[in-house]
Amino acid sequence: MNSFRPALAAISLALLSTAASAQTPPLEAQAEAALEGDAYAWDFVEGITTEVGPRQAGTEAEARGRAWAMAWLAKHGFANVADEAFMMDTWLPGDIARARVTAPFAQDLTVLPLGNSAATPQGGIEGEVVFFRTFDDLRAAQAGSLAGKIAYISHQMRPAQDGSHYGFAGPARWVGAGIAASKGAIGTVIKSVGTDHHRNPHTGGTSFPEGVTPTPAGALSLPDAENLERMFARAEGRPITMKLEMNPRQVGQMRSGNVVGEIVGSNPMLPPVLLACHIDSWWNAPGAFDDGAGCGIIAAAALNAAKAGQPLRTIRVLMAGAEETGLWGSKAYSTAHINEPMAVGIESDFGADRIWRFDSNFRETNPALHKRIAAAVARFGVSAGTEAATGGADLNIVRDQRGALIDLQQDGTRYFDLHHTPDDTLDKIDIVQLRQNVAVWTQVVGILANESTSIQTGGPIPSAPPIMQGQ
Amino acid sequence: MNSFRPALAAISLALLSTAASAQTPPLEAQAEAALEGDAYAWDFVEGITTEVGPRQAGTEAEARGRAWAMAWLAKHGFANVADEAFMMDTWLPGDIARARVTAPFAQDLTVLPLGNSAATPQGGIEGEVVFFRTFDDLRAAQAGSLAGKIAYISHQMRPAQDGSHYGFAGPARWVGAGIAASKGAIGTVIKSVGTDHHRNPHTGGTSFPEGVTPTPAGALSLPDAENLERMFARAEGRPITMKLEMNPRQVGQMRSGNVVGEIVGSNPMLPPVLLACHIDSWWNAPGAFDDGAGCGIIAAAALNAAKAGQPLRTIRVLMAGAEETGLWGSKAYSTAHINEPMAVGIESDFGADRIWRFDSNFRETNPALHKRIAAAVARFGVSAGTEAATGGADLNIVRDQRGALIDLQQDGTRYFDLHHTPDDTLDKIDIVQLRQNVAVWTQVVGILANESTSIQTGGPIPSAPPIMQGQ
Repeated sequence: MNSFRPALAAISLALLSTAASAQTPPLEAQAEAALEGDAYAWDFVEGITTEVGPRQAGTEAEARGRAWAMAWLAKHGFANVADEAFMMDTWLPGDIARARVTAPFAQDLTVLPLGNSAATPQGGIEGEVVFFRTFDDLRAAQAGSLAGKIAYISHQMRPAQDGSHYGFAGPARWVGAGIAASKGAIGTVIKSVGTDHHRNPHTGGTSFPEGVTPTPAGALSLPDAENLERMFARAEGRPITMKLEMNPRQVGQMRSGNVVGEIVGSNPMLPPVLLACHIDSWWNAPGAFDDGAGCGIIAAAALNAAKAGQPLRTIRVLMAGAEETGLWGSKAYSTAHINEPMAVGIESDFGADRIWRFDSNFRETNPALHKRIAAAVARFGVSAGTEAATGGADLNIVRDQRGALIDLQQDGTRYFDLHHTPDDTLDKIDIVQLRQNVAVWTQVVGILANESTSIQTGGPIPSAPPIMQGQ
Repeated sequence: MNSFRPALAAISLALLSTAASAQTPPLEAQAEAALEGDAYAWDFVEGITTEVGPRQAGTEAEARGRAWAMAWLAKHGFANVADEAFMMDTWLPGDIARARVTAPFAQDLTVLPLGNSAATPQGGIEGEVVFFRTFDDLRAAQAGSLAGKIAYISHQMRPAQDGSHYGFAGPARWVGAGIAASKGAIGTVIKSVGTDHHRNPHTGGTSFPEGVTPTPAGALSLPDAENLERMFARAEGRPITMKLEMNPRQVGQMRSGNVVGEIVGSNPMLPPVLLACHIDSWWNAPGAFDDGAGCGIIAAAALNAAKAGQPLRTIRVLMAGAEETGLWGSKAYSTAHINEPMAVGIESDFGADRIWRFDSNFRETNPALHKRIAAAVARFGVSAGTEAATGGADLNIVRDQRGALIDLQQDGTRYFDLHHTPDDTLDKIDIVQLRQNVAVWTQVVGILANESTSIQTGGPIPSAPPIMQGQ
């Protein structure tokens, strides 16, 4: 029970702090005010989902999303707002996605293509469905054994607070179609990598190995996948055949872009604090949880932290383009800015539910700062974890620089109910939990942006980015 | 607190009955066994949703549904299994359903056509959207005021255990498009009449008044409807325009049919007990809640009641065709059998959640039987209500005969999350609650089928059906 004593002490301090709120420092006051009312995060995510909607990477809709975000940032006082262009391979989903069991139990199933799926010929493909209960079963299938057939890959993904079942079930989507194709399959359908039971498939990228020609690849909604599995039970050995028709396509190099904006710090010699999210979404949803909310949260935190006074360091927001289809924006940003040292990176890209844990990758190298942040967020119900933060998908630049990273871990219990489905809409955001995110972020960003020593080490600021020193 | 005394007495009796289970009468034992395991209802609904799937009235899929149900009934020992054909006006949904806001916030919205909707021209119709917050607001609009425009009708439906908000919100769907068309609208979209927040619109029939040419009419999913309403708030007076494209069609007279089967009673002079459900579903879902479960429940009750010994009266199941598109089966059955008196009618068509209330329309004319049934179902958590039962949609014949009716009211709190949406799939059925339905139905059907006097009056059985006596 000893382990609870520090927590009780923290509670006592928090009560004391509330009682003495007249002396609360401005940053703490800004963070706490966010719990009561949020002028920015909701407005951002409500605005972009309502006024723009889905923002598939490389489309005019994504461009409208960037323009909308730039206007929002400028209106709210961000400096140096820009759309940093890059080109990237672009896949589009098409407008036909049909799966139909043709025998023995004729019935349509709800399907959406996976990113990088090939198109079927017009009229579709038809083949016997081979049922793989797990990804390992598919890997164990003999070479050539799927010739002329359609692979179906199941899994048993369950909700997990830390989202860790995504790693457990994800391979079925990430590489399943490529493995099936390498064994001769003419197409693949998977049970959606998700945890809900609605007729809305979860899309997401898949990749085909070098030398394997991409095939059509789709995700069935979970009710449809379960229905297909019941068909196998009821067919008693009779073959189940499926017709699959989809028309996605690769359209070559298209323009995307990274939207950036800054709260300018008072000391231009100090590397900036980088806050990341992504501005694109899949075509099938307005991207409220993924990642309109994240962009709203980081922008709100920057603005709230600035209300406590101009920070020492510049706070830069990076709303990356084309994250979903291959982290194109993240890579482009790193390439363009690799020689510009970043003090620390944090990303919000896991919905809008409550933050419950704080991790950093400087717990051992700068324990004082790690503990200071942990103590500051404890009153919002955030514990300090012991894992090394690895940063979000759009923080390639910080990873490439081997820089400081923080993870503000959100509750992911229902994240995979919504992830990459048409159901990722504004109504899913719980405004109370969204505000808790803004409060925690405000607190953390404010501390970081006013830190005068190296965030990684607590020592003097390096004169060149760490990655450059070894070159 | 006096009112609780009879309930406490009933609990004491139930405990006594459990203690003395060796003497439990066979019918009670059959009903109680259904709580522990159900050999029929789940098998029926799992089978028809898996092996047949959606069963739109008048299609070959509905015909496959009838054939499947007949085979199931025969396999399980029902006698006189038949498909009683009828012809009916038939509407089909087509395969195109697109709604897109074109200005000022271009974005696709998820839409499905309503039953009896007209098609748009190829390429769609486009018009300014006029927002009606309530059905009454639409009714108050001036004649001609919607010329060239698309009406959007909202509402504030909320979940209700007795489903009563369907009556509150339903008119938007039932007659909204016709009223809008009569005021000049070129099309109508409604907020789905439902209580969920998934991107799955709720379809359902709509009707146009005599002399009003049907227009395209669709339902937006609730998240899309709310998005459209937010657009009105953000447009600040700018017109919102929508493009709507759908291709449903009326295809004239098609064949449907009523599937019937019987547990034959020992006294052929006694009118049968009629148990009803409907075999058809909308095209967009396999119809698990609506109404595969209901058909499974009534069939299971008949079989379980028969296990307690051959009943006095014949138990007839009526799995009506083409209920969704206009109660065609119910009307055809009444026309064909009006001269054959029915003892009593009960229907299961409100999902598969727990039965919580029992009503009859003979509480005053045969109070002894009403009380006997109430006492028998109390141990399953079913209270006796004071409303007069009106019977389900497929019991037209009993209403036309002014006969006895029972309503076994199911908990409808989540029924309108699923009603008429693609989400009406097997996974939504809670097997524990399904079994409670079967237990209650077994108990009630067993009592009714062994009642030797008139169910309506407790007196002698009339020699001709009541409706004939007045002619």
